Amino acid sequence: MSDTYRRIALARRPDGAATTEDFSFETDPMPEPGDGEVLVEVQWMSLDPYMRGRMDDAKSYAAPVEIGGTMTAQGVGRVIASKAEGLVEGDIVTGMTGWASHAVLSGKEVRKLDEGTPPSAVLGVLGMPGFTGWRGLHEYGRPKSGETLVVGAATGPVGSMVGQLAKAMGLRTIAIAGGAEKCRIATETFGFDAAIDHRAHDDARALRKAIAEAAPDGVDIYWENVGGKLLEAVLPLMNVHGRIPLCGAVAWYSGDVSETNLLPMAWRSILTKRLSVNGFIIFDHWDHYPAFLKDVAPRVAGGEINYLEDVAEGLENAPGAFIEMLKGGNTGKQVVKL
Amino acid sequence: MSDTYRRIALARRPDGAATTEDFSFETDPMPEPGDGEVLVEVQWMSLDPYMRGRMDDAKSYAAPVEIGGTMTAQGVGRVIASKAEGLVEGDIVTGMTGWASHAVLSGKEVRKLDEGTPPSAVLGVLGMPGFTGWRGLHEYGRPKSGETLVVGAATGPVGSMVGQLAKAMGLRTIAIAGGAEKCRIATETFGFDAAIDHRAHDDARALRKAIAEAAPDGVDIYWENVGGKLLEAVLPLMNVHGRIPLCGAVAWYSGDVSETNLLPMAWRSILTKRLSVNGFIIFDHWDHYPAFLKDVAPRVAGGEINYLEDVAEGLENAPGAFIEMLKGGNTGKQVVKL
Repeated sequence: MSDTYRRIALARRPDGAATTEDFSFETDPMPEPGDGEVLVEVQWMSLDPYMRGRMDDAKSYAAPVEIGGTMTAQGVGRVIASKAEGLVEGDIVTGMTGWASHAVLSGKEVRKLDEGTPPSAVLGVLGMPGFTGWRGLHEYGRPKSGETLVVGAATGPVGSMVGQLAKAMGLRTIAIAGGAEKCRIATETFGFDAAIDHRAHDDARALRKAIAEAAPDGVDIYWENVGGKLLEAVLPLMNVHGRIPLCGAVAWYSGDVSETNLLPMAWRSILTKRLSVNGFIIFDHWDHYPAFLKDVAPRVAGGEINYLEDVAEGLENAPGAFIEMLKGGNTGKQVVKL
Repeated sequence: MSDTYRRIALARRPDGAATTEDFSFETDPMPEPGDGEVLVEVQWMSLDPYMRGRMDDAKSYAAPVEIGGTMTAQGVGRVIASKAEGLVEGDIVTGMTGWASHAVLSGKEVRKLDEGTPPSAVLGVLGMPGFTGWRGLHEYGRPKSGETLVVGAATGPVGSMVGQLAKAMGLRTIAIAGGAEKCRIATETFGFDAAIDHRAHDDARALRKAIAEAAPDGVDIYWENVGGKLLEAVLPLMNVHGRIPLCGAVAWYSGDVSETNLLPMAWRSILTKRLSVNGFIIFDHWDHYPAFLKDVAPRVAGGEINYLEDVAEGLENAPGAFIEMLKGGNTGKQVVKL
């Protein structure tokens, strides 16, 4: 075993969009597991939009990453030393390893993968993003057959789960994605009824027109993970008693903000359409995770629910892949293979 | 019986705040009731903030008033001619009479007042505003003993109902009102634990500081009927899993809009605090009106729930009273005595 390990730290807080200079590469002495802990050699690491929020110093639902601290991430890896009951060398586990080649974690904070599960799938379709889509759609979207759903970032791991679940329940599903290729994937791989390329529409008004054409009966559920221009486009199209599950606003994470004050328009839509807007953070919902796995794992194994991964190779490429992902440069769930 | 009646029509659509020039006084031939209808001589008429929305041409939950059309209002009056089953001359009824001295209404669209009910009370504490507060608080506020509630326009008929119901359920109640006199009324008449004069605080930041001092444990329910500066002040003070029942935004009805785009801030609060924001229109909820009366009418009669009325005299003074009300110039439920 090497006597050092590699990790990626937050070098400084980004000013707007994150850049590679915001990260630093560190080599530190290999940590040793204490009582009840395991040392994990990381094989796969997840990159997710929420991590951009952790780079800021703003008060949020989770503490920000400290300057010099290791960037947060879920990972999958092999136990290479164990002082934790029930875990032995060679076990494949998942836990919050961070952006690092190795991590010491409490045995209680890791979970052994089920037999036959592809390791990277627990970071995406069967992990936090897939679970986010499943839980939020059922709890806050309250879908009904015949309704219309619009979802942004539709080829991402959350959006594609939402779209496929809704389609299976008899909804009309409309994907918003960046570029013709993603639109093709949205309809061909994920079965969306229509896909709209937001890049082909300069402003909210043009995007709204395209969505209105694809949603002749209006929009009952707007799955909100984007914010920005898409939100501005969709709000006036919402039907009475529509629902907006709100789990992200990636367009705003990097400060891309319209100069018009849109809050009065949003509030007016919520009032006059009697909308239900619910913010949620999947970390509040882990008690439903077993029910999610029970429902969705067989449907993934059976090919009813598809997923796509975008694999970056090597820890050193994590910052670049992360920055690209925030710009929509990836296709499917972004993971890093170490 | 006079062979003419008086009504107030919409003369033009307001540009920003409503002015007296937006209204016209009309004298028309006295209408006659057809089969199933009654002719009502209006004695009391309600003025409510929602009417400002009806003056605009914007798509909303109800059709706008046409230019030249009679302004909408609930009224109470005496039946002076009846061709409707079950209604006779002399009955005191309530219905959508409009801003008018007389109205012909379908017998199915009026309701006879219960014995002993003060006529004007059915326009306020026992009418739409009181019912709005009762229904919205229970359905969307989901109050729990020990929590903190903030309500704007707190001496108005909705706010004062919300505050008194919440206080009786063991919540800490914080009133926002305009001026020292209304703050005194909020605590003395309506039992709020604290009252804050929004006029004494120039901007959202100063108002936020005052609310934060009055709400040391944060805000669990923000009853939204104001929007504007108050919303901007309260959002960052919301507790995790807070609720925002949204039934109005009077500060914005006349175009008083901050130049900063506050939607990203609002969306971020909803997301990170996992808030539940529900727009609602009381017209969707009339099936719960009997339950409201059963709960609240005895508590009003017994003096447990107080109410205040601001009475304008004469139909001709309705526009002036309405304009003043939108500026917060009234105290308590604004009615017009004809």
